[in-house]
Amino acid sequence: MNQVLNSELEKLTDAILASYDSEPRTRRIDDAFLPSRDRIVELIEEIRQLLFPGFFSQKVLTRENVKFHVGSLLEQIGTHLTDQAAHCLCSDLHRTCDGCIDPGPCHHQAAQIARDFLARIPSIRGRLALDAQAAYDGDPAAKSIAEIIYCYPGFYAVTVHRIAHELLKLGVPLMARIMSEYAHSATGCDIHPGAVIGESFFIDHGTGVVIGETSRIGNHVKIYQGVTLGAKSFPKDERGRVIKGLQRHPTIEDSVTLYANATILGGQTVIGRGVTVAGNTFITESIIADSVVEPHRQEMKVRSKKKP
Amino acid sequence: MNQVLNSELEKLTDAILASYDSEPRTRRIDDAFLPSRDRIVELIEEIRQLLFPGFFSQKVLTRENVKFHVGSLLEQIGTHLTDQAAHCLCSDLHRTCDGCIDPGPCHHQAAQIARDFLARIPSIRGRLALDAQAAYDGDPAAKSIAEIIYCYPGFYAVTVHRIAHELLKLGVPLMARIMSEYAHSATGCDIHPGAVIGESFFIDHGTGVVIGETSRIGNHVKIYQGVTLGAKSFPKDERGRVIKGLQRHPTIEDSVTLYANATILGGQTVIGRGVTVAGNTFITESIIADSVVEPHRQEMKVRSKKKP
Amino acid sequence: MNQVLNSELEKLTDAILASYDSEPRTRRIDDAFLPSRDRIVELIEEIRQLLFPGFFSQKVLTRENVKFHVGSLLEQIGTHLTDQAAHCLCSDLHRTCDGCIDPGPCHHQAAQIARDFLARIPSIRGRLALDAQAAYDGDPAAKSIAEIIYCYPGFYAVTVHRIAHELLKLGVPLMARIMSEYAHSATGCDIHPGAVIGESFFIDHGTGVVIGETSRIGNHVKIYQGVTLGAKSFPKDERGRVIKGLQRHPTIEDSVTLYANATILGGQTVIGRGVTVAGNTFITESIIADSVVEPHRQEMKVRSKKKP
Repeated sequence: MNQVLNSELEKLTDAILASYDSEPRTRRIDDAFLPSRDRIVELIEEIRQLLFPGFFSQKVLTRENVKFHVGSLLEQIGTHLTDQAAHCLCSDLHRTCDGCIDPGPCHHQAAQIARDFLARIPSIRGRLALDAQAAYDGDPAAKSIAEIIYCYPGFYAVTVHRIAHELLKLGVPLMARIMSEYAHSATGCDIHPGAVIGESFFIDHGTGVVIGETSRIGNHVKIYQGVTLGAKSFPKDERGRVIKGLQRHPTIEDSVTLYANATILGGQTVIGRGVTVAGNTFITESIIADSVVEPHRQEMKVRSKKKP
Repeated sequence: MNQVLNSELEKLTDAILASYDSEPRTRRIDDAFLPSRDRIVELIEEIRQLLFPGFFSQKVLTRENVKFHVGSLLEQIGTHLTDQAAHCLCSDLHRTCDGCIDPGPCHHQAAQIARDFLARIPSIRGRLALDAQAAYDGDPAAKSIAEIIYCYPGFYAVTVHRIAHELLKLGVPLMARIMSEYAHSATGCDIHPGAVIGESFFIDHGTGVVIGETSRIGNHVKIYQGVTLGAKSFPKDERGRVIKGLQRHPTIEDSVTLYANATILGGQTVIGRGVTVAGNTFITESIIADSVVEPHRQEMKVRSKKKP
Repeated sequence: MNQVLNSELEKLTDAILASYDSEPRTRRIDDAFLPSRDRIVELIEEIRQLLFPGFFSQKVLTRENVKFHVGSLLEQIGTHLTDQAAHCLCSDLHRTCDGCIDPGPCHHQAAQIARDFLARIPSIRGRLALDAQAAYDGDPAAKSIAEIIYCYPGFYAVTVHRIAHELLKLGVPLMARIMSEYAHSATGCDIHPGAVIGESFFIDHGTGVVIGETSRIGNHVKIYQGVTLGAKSFPKDERGRVIKGLQRHPTIEDSVTLYANATILGGQTVIGRGVTVAGNTFITESIIADSVVEPHRQEMKVRSKKKP
């Protein structure tokens, strides 16, 4: 290191240590080990290999080798999922045991979570096949279902959501959140693992989509880039604290289409079955079924740049 | 692996294999090898090194070593491009040969594609120099053209589009799509490789930009974050299937500026030469040349929070 | 390499070399070495380890080992920061010395920058603790402050901004810009390092947020996805060149909330203390304190899809 720095190293170190002492919220010292974000991201890719055999692996799958491939992948995912779930359960973030001096109970519970998750793979596969079909049917630019699985960011985000939502239900919300934020980073779609999403869901383009924690979405819903399903305001208790657990985000019924940059807010807001919402709209009240919402034509003003 | 899982491994494997059989859309077993997304992403970086010598390589280029550098880079890109293009041509996604029992024809065609692509490098360089200049002229925060090439995400997205568009025209749409989706992930700009974009094009900030497959953009066009050039509705044939091949996305003529989050939809929509479109507008009809489109001022309501 | 290509290699090489000669804006030959984007991204992660001990490292920190950990991390960061800052100072992009035939002065200045930056770590930590608290208070879905530090993309973007803003002030704008564009790519939040941001700042979801170079933001401001603080037009001098150095972006006073996709433009635009701005609004004039801005209700048109 350079000389100037060397001579000040002791002083700098002490100043930083003092700031660790004075601000405990932003340090973890003498604390449980956090899960590894990198390992959890690898888990997503391993699970995708299991969900879509032959798409993401570097070997050709055949009728003969597929059973071996699945068995070994299951073993690998089971081990990694158990390890990381145990770290999630033990860590302070969402503590479920008392300090975890003995990590045994966390590990036992984590193994059960891994087993339960893997048993749900066939049903997740079934839902994702419907989602891929919905994307193919909904996008004239789509050349094949394989292209959707291989390339479409909206489909990637939905895949990770279907995985993360199950992990949340199985009791590892931190792992679910790490996965959904990774998908957010990769695709620009921010889907909270808690959102409940029906069958045949399609997000086109996807960047800027936000789907809040308590959103409820029906079947055959189609969403374009920049759509927000958000909270309007947060009901507070008599001490001014936000009341948790209420529905803060909208309900979207079956067969709704939300075009680019529509913003829909509020836990009481219900977009009825079959509604079409135009782009760049801002909606905070319910819309009755089978209607079209669009801005008034006179909203725009067109004037010439030419001097008269 | 943990004991619980081991004892159930056989049962889990069988359940998952059964789901592979019952849902063929989401598996590739006994099927041609897919191209490697990772290798195609590396190709983008190799091509950028060729396009912008001295910017992204880890050695200093001089008049003396540059010829050797270019020759060896060309050889490397030629090999990788041929390999991946052959996988694209052979794979089911966009099959061009009959099952590819003999991969020879695919490989021969891929080598020709690689050669044709590399011959276009000088003309791609010419276009990108104009794009970089347009970014410098259009952004007061820009310190130099080098900063734009090195840092600007919008320029990165345009660079990948200029590459992907040529590869699409040369017959490898899957490779083009993988590249454009990578740029989408890295920058938030979703430009379909099919879009036709004129000279001196500048995307500022870029996150949330969507430019659809059949968009046509003139020269000296400037686009800000969140702008969508999208489809309004999809004309269907008598059997209810979307008719492919029609222009579904807008035409933007020369010297147009589209501010943040403008949404412009429809294959019949033409934004005339010299038009300026304000932010957060929603346009589904043509705008005549040399005009300004903006929301009416009275659209906003401002009320005091203070009790009267 | 394939034969077709080999036979043409010489011709291709010459054509590309000729295009390097004819278009100097997009090449760096016989020029100073650029900093390494990859190394600067690693620096961000090393600095985050220093800022948030125990969150991102792969070992458990204890009262006993933390001093050693900090000392060795400081040494590592000091070396890497000095090296990359020297490259930034030497490179053409923001040249501060004359050709840098002797890199000594650049390296000496870079070492001073590294030392000054590290001395600011405790104060950056203090600000980030307030930002994390603001995120926890502002988001009902947040389970703990640790979850925010570990998972929230908006908090990541603010962390990188607090680092990059100091580096800009210390005289390495190119390093600052590379860091902020990396955060932009990872989170969809494009915060220019020059923006001045007060205490307890919270960006929720974050994708599509753009905060321009000359924005000024007060304390306790909350911003949602898709919000733009942008420039309206660029005042030009008598020769038609954009005048640099003026405030082109808005001022946001204390305790303002800006909902999703609000677009606020112009250097003269001041959003007064305590204002709430609804989503999808487009604002180019100042708003007085303690008011609410929202679209008129009649803006939307709802019509039935059913035939009468």
